Amino acid sequence: MGARIALIADLGESFGAYSMGDDEELLKIVTGANIACGFHAGDPRVMDRTVRACVERGVGIGAHPSFPDLIGFGRRAMDLAAEEVRTDILYQIGALSAFATAHGTRVTHLTPHGKLGNLVITRPDYAQAMVEAAQAFDPSLVIVTQDGEVVRAAQERDARIAMVGVIDRNYEDDGTLTPRGTPEAVLHDPEVILARTLRMVVDGTVVSRTGAVLPVRTDAILLHGDGDGALELARRVRTELLAAGVELAPLGELIAGRAA
Amino acid sequence: MGARIALIADLGESFGAYSMGDDEELLKIVTGANIACGFHAGDPRVMDRTVRACVERGVGIGAHPSFPDLIGFGRRAMDLAAEEVRTDILYQIGALSAFATAHGTRVTHLTPHGKLGNLVITRPDYAQAMVEAAQAFDPSLVIVTQDGEVVRAAQERDARIAMVGVIDRNYEDDGTLTPRGTPEAVLHDPEVILARTLRMVVDGTVVSRTGAVLPVRTDAILLHGDGDGALELARRVRTELLAAGVELAPLGELIAGRAA
Amino acid sequence: MGARIALIADLGESFGAYSMGDDEELLKIVTGANIACGFHAGDPRVMDRTVRACVERGVGIGAHPSFPDLIGFGRRAMDLAAEEVRTDILYQIGALSAFATAHGTRVTHLTPHGKLGNLVITRPDYAQAMVEAAQAFDPSLVIVTQDGEVVRAAQERDARIAMVGVIDRNYEDDGTLTPRGTPEAVLHDPEVILARTLRMVVDGTVVSRTGAVLPVRTDAILLHGDGDGALELARRVRTELLAAGVELAPLGELIAGRAA
Amino acid sequence: MGARIALIADLGESFGAYSMGDDEELLKIVTGANIACGFHAGDPRVMDRTVRACVERGVGIGAHPSFPDLIGFGRRAMDLAAEEVRTDILYQIGALSAFATAHGTRVTHLTPHGKLGNLVITRPDYAQAMVEAAQAFDPSLVIVTQDGEVVRAAQERDARIAMVGVIDRNYEDDGTLTPRGTPEAVLHDPEVILARTLRMVVDGTVVSRTGAVLPVRTDAILLHGDGDGALELARRVRTELLAAGVELAPLGELIAGRAA
Repeated sequence: MGARIALIADLGESFGAYSMGDDEELLKIVTGANIACGFHAGDPRVMDRTVRACVERGVGIGAHPSFPDLIGFGRRAMDLAAEEVRTDILYQIGALSAFATAHGTRVTHLTPHGKLGNLVITRPDYAQAMVEAAQAFDPSLVIVTQDGEVVRAAQERDARIAMVGVIDRNYEDDGTLTPRGTPEAVLHDPEVILARTLRMVVDGTVVSRTGAVLPVRTDAILLHGDGDGALELARRVRTELLAAGVELAPLGELIAGRAA
Repeated sequence: MGARIALIADLGESFGAYSMGDDEELLKIVTGANIACGFHAGDPRVMDRTVRACVERGVGIGAHPSFPDLIGFGRRAMDLAAEEVRTDILYQIGALSAFATAHGTRVTHLTPHGKLGNLVITRPDYAQAMVEAAQAFDPSLVIVTQDGEVVRAAQERDARIAMVGVIDRNYEDDGTLTPRGTPEAVLHDPEVILARTLRMVVDGTVVSRTGAVLPVRTDAILLHGDGDGALELARRVRTELLAAGVELAPLGELIAGRAA
Repeated sequence: MGARIALIADLGESFGAYSMGDDEELLKIVTGANIACGFHAGDPRVMDRTVRACVERGVGIGAHPSFPDLIGFGRRAMDLAAEEVRTDILYQIGALSAFATAHGTRVTHLTPHGKLGNLVITRPDYAQAMVEAAQAFDPSLVIVTQDGEVVRAAQERDARIAMVGVIDRNYEDDGTLTPRGTPEAVLHDPEVILARTLRMVVDGTVVSRTGAVLPVRTDAILLHGDGDGALELARRVRTELLAAGVELAPLGELIAGRAA
Repeated sequence: MGARIALIADLGESFGAYSMGDDEELLKIVTGANIACGFHAGDPRVMDRTVRACVERGVGIGAHPSFPDLIGFGRRAMDLAAEEVRTDILYQIGALSAFATAHGTRVTHLTPHGKLGNLVITRPDYAQAMVEAAQAFDPSLVIVTQDGEVVRAAQERDARIAMVGVIDRNYEDDGTLTPRGTPEAVLHDPEVILARTLRMVVDGTVVSRTGAVLPVRTDAILLHGDGDGALELARRVRTELLAAGVELAPLGELIAGRAA
């Protein structure tokens, strides 16, 4: 059987009078949306219309919770108690879920935003808090993550996870990302990125910065809609994956049968 | 069959480092809680522990949504589009619902807070927006209201409502409350209030300011925990209703079989 | 002596990760900036860099306070106590003033934003609260307004005001604006708008919708940077006023010697 | 000449409908107030009436800026850019300053709140950002601090500082506080605390946990109004300092002539 994968992107990041992102175009490309829940971006109107647009296009609904930091767009580290992380995430999933319910669907995945998304990878307390929130809300919720503490916390609690492939960054031989700021950390050539993406998805491997071939599990690819050429790259990722016979599916369907 | 009624109170109105109300004592008295959802009061920790305490005591979970006005405690009028009212309420019900789900229960009623609660009585657009939000989230959700636009909007949409009895205010002959600021508008004597409460619940009537006997449907009594003597009065309302053979029940059970 | 006038625009309305407006271009055109103070838009970084840019270009610094309604961009009516309006405005002027001080200048005018700006024209309590805040902060602060309650409140308190000319709206014979929604309320033809602007500034008159010639005092023209053709129109207003021998000046200088 | 010292306390930490602290009693004891500026506590009404009460009692006005974290009461670490710390502090000082101006006085000192107050002691970037904000607003502003990075940053920039004495904590021999969580870190016996306070102020020394006599500069003592016995202790500190001939003064007067 051929590879199956989800294409996801952050959506619904407008706020009040402020617009952000090209949601309309991204919705033509992705199979899943990480929807802001009001803590770093998004508001009840934006959430409502983003969920509606996802439903119209058959795009899976994911919660994209954040630290409570609208002014910093959730990009600044906050040192919270695990209990604060757990309850902040529950609140946000629930808020989004009301719009999913109103539109006849439900939240099927969870992708933590910004600095919260970074810190759950390295802080066991944050990882456990997030997994507990997800499990308490719905044990079938799929948590999108990279390798790290979330994987451990999910395994302990039998939670569903989806591994997200990072297509525009180099890897070290131990499977970690080459740190930002290091030369060659970020890849820019679309052809290189596309080739890596196909290899990740079809072969399940990635070539490290030094040339080693590393195994990599990839359930989802995170695409972007802002920045020069981002939308065009996103479209090509979709087109070439389809051309290679890869099946694109929402995370809820993709992960349904898998254990963490 | 004897009368059945719910006793409700506003709970979970603490916020961050700030405490408000004597939730612990009120939880011993009421059968339903109107729980703040973070817009005028409450935060994810307060919501979580308030829902847990309700579950432990078998108290029904109600959403207590507000205008987005933390600094004004939801007591200031805002002129919003109906769409803003609808989506703000959906967001708040959903957020609370996540904590209900996490504690193995669900939100069964909805009592709008403060100025929003006042305005839905008189503004058809707000009333319809609230009823639509409630129906979109869960058609069995019981909306707590006084006579007015909410009743009309609920009837049109076949929504469940519970009529809340106002026990410390005088009524005019047309069934409206004697306006605040008018002499005799507010009742202060606990014995008078208790006698009226029993009459409302058991006989289904209230005596107007001029002495007329008016029919009144009362599904719930709103109790308070702050102010001199409020808790003591709340306890006596409970005791005397029980002594009169009135059955106390959560709103979800009480209204389950009734049409609006 | 020829006419002197200020050209003003709303600036600094970005927020966190969100951009709004083309401040750079507007700063080449105006002599005064109405700078958002964080309640409807703006944040401390945006305020700091907007003030710095104004200082570099010799543009006058004005506070642009709002209702506390970030999610509604200050465009929604709120029913506040006069004391709340007064203290909210003081807070915002003060916050902006710190950045002015840090850049070696000071706040010289005050233009209320959005719905607050509308309501001070018609609500005496709001108008008085705003004028009191301005006077308490700095009696020389120039309050930008249209005809209405602010003018009355300012006269009673000997406050300085600047009358802002509305260049893209029709007037009724009584000097009020033709209400929005009425045919011909809004003017669209740039040539018509430019001709009216010159007449307002140079002759001190405006022709009403029915053809009557009305006297009009105009100390400032409010320009916009968003919307089709807005920046181009703003540039032409500046160019044609200069060509007509009109002197452009910041409000602080312009109004210095005038009584309300 | 005898010792002179300021007694300060955190005031104005109520918010909207929420009350905190016993400001009225503390105002009878202290010579300076650290007034919340709306980021962790306080709102424009609370700020206005707190400043008014200080003016009525001759209590010095200090800004008490915080991280932007109302829900966490400013007690949670945030990892901000120095530029964010600087501009957040400027904004808050300015906002408070408007109320000082409206009441005919000015802000004379600055005491960072909560976790920001902790971190400026150890993070040079935060310390420098705070000192720059203070200097940019008013070079005569007195910054209240303990030993650490703020002292260094203030010396480099010739800023005025006041050393705050910690009267209920043990010191190690190197002059640092015995870390919380360590046995004997916190002192509880009022008699011990009072004796230490007098020694700090009159002799300029403190006895370390191991018995060493350390020199200590103390310009201000921080008092508290909440917690068992706190107000009573605060009153006794005042009384016994006066009985020992110590002169109590606001920080603005006390530090006026001193270099950092």
